[in-house]
Amino acid sequence: MSEKTLAYLQEKRSSLLDKLNEFLSIPSVSTSKEHKEDIHKAADFIVNYLNEIGFDKVEKQQTKGHPLVYAEYNEAGPEAPTVLFYGHYDVQPVDPVELWESDPFQPEIRDGRLYARGSSDDKGQVFMHLAVFEAYMRTEGKLPLNVKVCIEGEEEIGSENLYEILQEKKEMFQADFAVISDSGMIAKNQPTILYGLKGFTGIEINVTGPDHDLHSGMYGGAIRNPLMALSHILASMKNQDEVVTVDGFYNDVEPLSGHERKLIDQVHGEDYTISTGVKETVSEKGYTAKEHTMARPTLEINGMFGGYQGEGTKTIIPSSATAKITCRLVPGQDPVKIQQLLEEHINKVAPTGVNVEVKKEKLSAKAYKVEPEHALIQKAAASYSKAFGKDTVYVRMGGSIPVVEWIEDIYNIPIVLLGFGTPDDRLHSPNESFPMDSFEKGMETLVYYWNEVIK
Amino acid sequence: MSEKTLAYLQEKRSSLLDKLNEFLSIPSVSTSKEHKEDIHKAADFIVNYLNEIGFDKVEKQQTKGHPLVYAEYNEAGPEAPTVLFYGHYDVQPVDPVELWESDPFQPEIRDGRLYARGSSDDKGQVFMHLAVFEAYMRTEGKLPLNVKVCIEGEEEIGSENLYEILQEKKEMFQADFAVISDSGMIAKNQPTILYGLKGFTGIEINVTGPDHDLHSGMYGGAIRNPLMALSHILASMKNQDEVVTVDGFYNDVEPLSGHERKLIDQVHGEDYTISTGVKETVSEKGYTAKEHTMARPTLEINGMFGGYQGEGTKTIIPSSATAKITCRLVPGQDPVKIQQLLEEHINKVAPTGVNVEVKKEKLSAKAYKVEPEHALIQKAAASYSKAFGKDTVYVRMGGSIPVVEWIEDIYNIPIVLLGFGTPDDRLHSPNESFPMDSFEKGMETLVYYWNEVIK
Repeated sequence: MSEKTLAYLQEKRSSLLDKLNEFLSIPSVSTSKEHKEDIHKAADFIVNYLNEIGFDKVEKQQTKGHPLVYAEYNEAGPEAPTVLFYGHYDVQPVDPVELWESDPFQPEIRDGRLYARGSSDDKGQVFMHLAVFEAYMRTEGKLPLNVKVCIEGEEEIGSENLYEILQEKKEMFQADFAVISDSGMIAKNQPTILYGLKGFTGIEINVTGPDHDLHSGMYGGAIRNPLMALSHILASMKNQDEVVTVDGFYNDVEPLSGHERKLIDQVHGEDYTISTGVKETVSEKGYTAKEHTMARPTLEINGMFGGYQGEGTKTIIPSSATAKITCRLVPGQDPVKIQQLLEEHINKVAPTGVNVEVKKEKLSAKAYKVEPEHALIQKAAASYSKAFGKDTVYVRMGGSIPVVEWIEDIYNIPIVLLGFGTPDDRLHSPNESFPMDSFEKGMETLVYYWNEVIK
Repeated sequence: MSEKTLAYLQEKRSSLLDKLNEFLSIPSVSTSKEHKEDIHKAADFIVNYLNEIGFDKVEKQQTKGHPLVYAEYNEAGPEAPTVLFYGHYDVQPVDPVELWESDPFQPEIRDGRLYARGSSDDKGQVFMHLAVFEAYMRTEGKLPLNVKVCIEGEEEIGSENLYEILQEKKEMFQADFAVISDSGMIAKNQPTILYGLKGFTGIEINVTGPDHDLHSGMYGGAIRNPLMALSHILASMKNQDEVVTVDGFYNDVEPLSGHERKLIDQVHGEDYTISTGVKETVSEKGYTAKEHTMARPTLEINGMFGGYQGEGTKTIIPSSATAKITCRLVPGQDPVKIQQLLEEHINKVAPTGVNVEVKKEKLSAKAYKVEPEHALIQKAAASYSKAFGKDTVYVRMGGSIPVVEWIEDIYNIPIVLLGFGTPDDRLHSPNESFPMDSFEKGMETLVYYWNEVIK
């Protein structure tokens, strides 16, 4: 049954790639208002594609922010299971654009990789699902199971409206299980089941001092420098052993069992010094870098700015300083409680002479974990292995997908994370790419999986 | 003799103001290449004005950077002293331009102040000198003393080429004493003799980590965050008691005598909480804010940046982080030695896992002090008091004027700092302004001073 479908994907390789490139060429950056039209263009692309494929009901749903594409396929019959397929069509900003070797919105294949913003995260992976649906419809005249499609345009800005929509339209999105392809494998062509994700929370710290930038000669010595005050605050939050020094931060962390530390040790992941160019890795005292990235919480400064940033010197005491911080959380930790602990710590250490404000980001998610033994997980692993010709490994990862927490929270259904990205994809960075191998073997995995699931 | 000259300045008030506004309207920002033409326009304005006034020799001298205006007036005869008048026609950048209440390059008078970039620092004060020269020539047919004019276009970028020029053309710039009006009074209409200036030195710290921005979920826990590393470095350089914690920083500082602490205590300077909007001042442990600003060294972060600075959240570990630091130095401290101490400290505390580079700024100056009892200083104080109707006070200030150190170093002549700015001028900030009172009484002071000097 799947042979014809696989053959179709082979035959149509070139026209499918053209279609994917058309999708990737739309600069659907969600963080910036200037791309509003492109966001709609990307949503319309999916709507048109799903209509062409022959879905029963296809809608561009308006939200308070960017539109969500919803679709249903119900012809597999009442006996067949229903899958909720989630993905996102929005992408990260491209800055600094000068570091891209080719235009981020003019896809280009180099050395077996397709370079474009969104090629891996997540337009490329969404497209694989659509192509597989097309292949099934054109060869079998139907899909093996019922499908609900939910492709949003706000993932990169924290899926601001999705939770409310999923809650309000609970009936509409109800399914037997969910599949998400917005993650990766631990190495190229290494089938990987992701059974745990970290949670997420964030704050912004704003330090304000004088009401205007001051001449450092005239005022230096009388005025607290907001950048120095902020540096003191930040340095007090994590020490050089990479241990977060905020009171209570680790209180609710589920301890890492000896068994799981062994499992983690067995994963042969990427060599960070090669993939990131650092001379040496660091990690929380008492834990390896693999343990820390997969299963221990982290705190990172994502951005910081204040004062003069141009050419040359400007001898000022700046009037303000800002830092953006996010934490990745593990099972047991509550994002809202962590925000509260961060705020309390900051207020406690804030120096005199400046005003320190903590803005709590709305975006947050609890960590997620599923049992690797679940049948839907085992079938996914088998499909993966068949397509890639290699045993599947089971890992936890540090990435956060808020929608995973929400689907679990609202629907309490199993969630299968079928990711095909690789460590070299440079998500969120210049020169994002996706291996052509992942496209082909990934689609093969999906063809097998839909067949397995109905057995 | 000075009455006619003073009357001329009164009569021509309106046309002189028009002329000043024309000068201030030229955006002669020296830090940025895009204003190269404006820099030349400002230099040409001065050249034309000096020619109109009737100087004997007027030249726009090319340098490796922005041009320098040189002029001579030699008609006062061999018995009369020769003054070297130094000023600068370049200005600071105007960013953030949205905070200006009127266009920085369309001068506007509001509440007795002239608002424009450069109105105080230093185009406005340079113009006062030119107007007084004009007034003398039009009323007396000559100037009371011989004059050499040196008005540069690179003060705000560290007077990069001036030292070399002053050294190479030693004969040309040789004079009996120097006058500089690029500073201020401690309060509006409070005649102030500035007998000491701080020195200056600067560094830039560049911390680089991964070779591209990383996804904080995938890499958080294995990679040292350059912004956190930089925060640790910066926090280690000054504690919350405002004491610089760099080994050896205070070693060569001349101790502050009890007598001088008393003099400083008697100065009734600005109320920093009013002029800067801070709730409370801070200062080095063991010293008052006045003592710290006037006579103790300082270390300030002038600017800092790294990672994502746009709207919303971007969950990255940034690939780099930068901080710009300058120190204000007091007599005894050597700028180059201080740079060396800063670099050694930074290398000592730099965390593993990142690369830390210290770039030493070329711009630097030793602190300067002159005896308040010198005759040229006493005559200046008398002229000030006569014009403003108030006793002159003697202060040291935290600002640095590298040219002061160089003139002393190369020519070893007395330097008189005749500044007319006020604490509310917002130098280097949005809404820079200069009191109209300072223009009028300042020009009066100069008319008296040139008369006094020849006695």
